[in-house]
Amino acid sequence: MNEIETLVACEEIRKVKAIYFRAMDTKQWDLLDGIFTQDIACDYRGALRSPDEPAAEDDDKDLVSGLAAVKDYIRTGLAPLISAHQGFMPEITIESDDSASAIWAMTDHLLLPDSPVREIIGYGHYHETYRKIAGKWRIATIRLTRLRVDFVSR
Amino acid sequence: MNEIETLVACEEIRKVKAIYFRAMDTKQWDLLDGIFTQDIACDYRGALRSPDEPAAEDDDKDLVSGLAAVKDYIRTGLAPLISAHQGFMPEITIESDDSASAIWAMTDHLLLPDSPVREIIGYGHYHETYRKIAGKWRIATIRLTRLRVDFVSR
Amino acid sequence: MNEIETLVACEEIRKVKAIYFRAMDTKQWDLLDGIFTQDIACDYRGALRSPDEPAAEDDDKDLVSGLAAVKDYIRTGLAPLISAHQGFMPEITIESDDSASAIWAMTDHLLLPDSPVREIIGYGHYHETYRKIAGKWRIATIRLTRLRVDFVSR
Repeated sequence: MNEIETLVACEEIRKVKAIYFRAMDTKQWDLLDGIFTQDIACDYRGALRSPDEPAAEDDDKDLVSGLAAVKDYIRTGLAPLISAHQGFMPEITIESDDSASAIWAMTDHLLLPDSPVREIIGYGHYHETYRKIAGKWRIATIRLTRLRVDFVSR
Repeated sequence: MNEIETLVACEEIRKVKAIYFRAMDTKQWDLLDGIFTQDIACDYRGALRSPDEPAAEDDDKDLVSGLAAVKDYIRTGLAPLISAHQGFMPEITIESDDSASAIWAMTDHLLLPDSPVREIIGYGHYHETYRKIAGKWRIATIRLTRLRVDFVSR
Repeated sequence: MNEIETLVACEEIRKVKAIYFRAMDTKQWDLLDGIFTQDIACDYRGALRSPDEPAAEDDDKDLVSGLAAVKDYIRTGLAPLISAHQGFMPEITIESDDSASAIWAMTDHLLLPDSPVREIIGYGHYHETYRKIAGKWRIATIRLTRLRVDFVSR
């Protein structure tokens, strides 16, 4: 890729990730169709605990792959909540004409109804890869790591 | 527009929006002169309530247009407060040589003096359009939508 | 610089700043080697107080310069804390082939162990300059200004 193509790819990947966040927070699940590969693979283990807390026994339920399963996982997890996801400071690397990777800093604010926990605030990073398919960049893998997770009581 | 011109336009629009935020938070009102069109039209209705709350009767006071009126509205609203606005994850679309649109995720933190409410934290999106006038991109319309608004008591 | 070179420089500077944040928050101090000039000069005075608070007598300890001293200052200050830095809305100006400047909006969340203060949340701006050395953009100066700093008790 030349410099212009690389810049265009970075711009497109930023936009794809922006749609990911907006889909989740505005609950427009159909927006997710256009931004994932068919074989999207997500590792959301540890999303809800600080790094110094032990893993849960059923942690593997947060390893999800395939477009239908990932869409269902996200919708099921986020539809009952008011969420606000913040993404910043991507480090995007274009690796070839049709593959790329990035690290994004992120914070999410989840507001829980009907729970002794009023709000969960998580700080961390998304580690992602992308593939360009039929002229469009799509998220191929997501791994979320955490710096800390705060639980705010009601 | 070719690819380079499009990339340059995206970069310029990001910078214009950055100045919008910095003007409000550092109270440098003169910075607003350079970033709006003369006929700037803003829809800030609903800025101070969560989406599930009913509209106020005087909601239309938050529909403001014209450079002088918008500058006055922003200055009057924000001068008494310490504010910190955060913008992220723009989805910018360049529509022609001199028109563009974007959606921005945003969070604002408003610190209120002399009020039983200590702080207002709002999460939402700016929906904006831009026009290029005399070689410079400017914000032409702003509409703010909210995911939630938190009021923190003193 | 032509338009493409300017866009590439902006992209590289964004990435350098992203590594700055990620190094601090993931405590990967070695990442700092690649992003500062040898004569990096930092002005972190006022980082821990709101603008209306008087300066501390020993404020000058937060003026640090030289790669080794700055790395040591950052590591000593941040290693004991869980930190999450957020950067947004850069206004980058490429001034020549090998010099640039930028203003970044920022928020940092510091979680303190063993202290009556549980958390410090700071809102402000980084004012920075950059130099391109041996083909790589590096941060040459940093000055942090604050809009407000919140101390949250345990």
